[in-house]
Amino acid sequence: MADAVLFEFLHTEMVAELWAPDPDPGSGGKRRSLSVLEGLGFRVGQALGERLPLETPAFREELDALKFLCRDLWAAMFQKHMDGLRTNHQGTYVLQDNSFPLLVTMGSGPQYLEEAPKFLAFTCGLLCGALHTLGFQSLVTASVASLPACKFQVVIQKS
Amino acid sequence: MADAVLFEFLHTEMVAELWAPDPDPGSGGKRRSLSVLEGLGFRVGQALGERLPLETPAFREELDALKFLCRDLWAAMFQKHMDGLRTNHQGTYVLQDNSFPLLVTMGSGPQYLEEAPKFLAFTCGLLCGALHTLGFQSLVTASVASLPACKFQVVIQKS
Repeated sequence: MADAVLFEFLHTEMVAELWAPDPDPGSGGKRRSLSVLEGLGFRVGQALGERLPLETPAFREELDALKFLCRDLWAAMFQKHMDGLRTNHQGTYVLQDNSFPLLVTMGSGPQYLEEAPKFLAFTCGLLCGALHTLGFQSLVTASVASLPACKFQVVIQKS
Repeated sequence: MADAVLFEFLHTEMVAELWAPDPDPGSGGKRRSLSVLEGLGFRVGQALGERLPLETPAFREELDALKFLCRDLWAAMFQKHMDGLRTNHQGTYVLQDNSFPLLVTMGSGPQYLEEAPKFLAFTCGLLCGALHTLGFQSLVTASVASLPACKFQVVIQKS
């Protein structure tokens, strides 16, 4: 299906365009690039969050919102579900994707690990933006131990 | 279907991020932004062109390639076909979309016309990139007389 590859190609080129690796580690170019990608993802996630749950009842419980991300949002983006969802029942959730599509096109050797963050920033922002629309403030980070698997950690911010 | 809106939302945010309107008309900021968007579209179009026609026979004739853009590529991107295709049979083609999805979210009054080019540059590049993969060098420009309709003019460059 071409829609899916269209999004993936566009994501790849957008990362290439917005990524400004910094020769001077002091001036924060990488961090700025990551936050631009995260911000972009946040706004797309907000918009998707407004669009997707039209047929879904309101999410009163955090866990319902997280399940929505793992099933409906992931299906809309990647035509599959998240592989795992764990929680400590205190507002921290770990979402596991064993083969994250935006990392699949990279090489999978350990030498590529340091390249991974730029392919995760947009999606971290997107998860955070979708949760924001659903009424939850969160911090979302991603980690990769072995490509192309990755984990997104979501910490819900209590108000 | 969420895929389609995902592409459209991402395109909108990418334009917002990459668009640098220039307070000084002499320094070409707008033109640079347009060419960045076009270049991004070109690379996505190249990649899509490689992916899509797998089941399609080789395109020996220009007109076949143009019909492919109007039907298959447009369906993959926008879940519909182009509304019209005209040619002077001398390498110039006009592709008409009566309701171009990337313009639909804009207001439709004439006061928005000058905003239109930034929402067309990516797709001009994409058409050009897809044609490049199919073996045709081209110049692609877009024009809007009445939002959200637009025309893409494709001029095939003879080698």
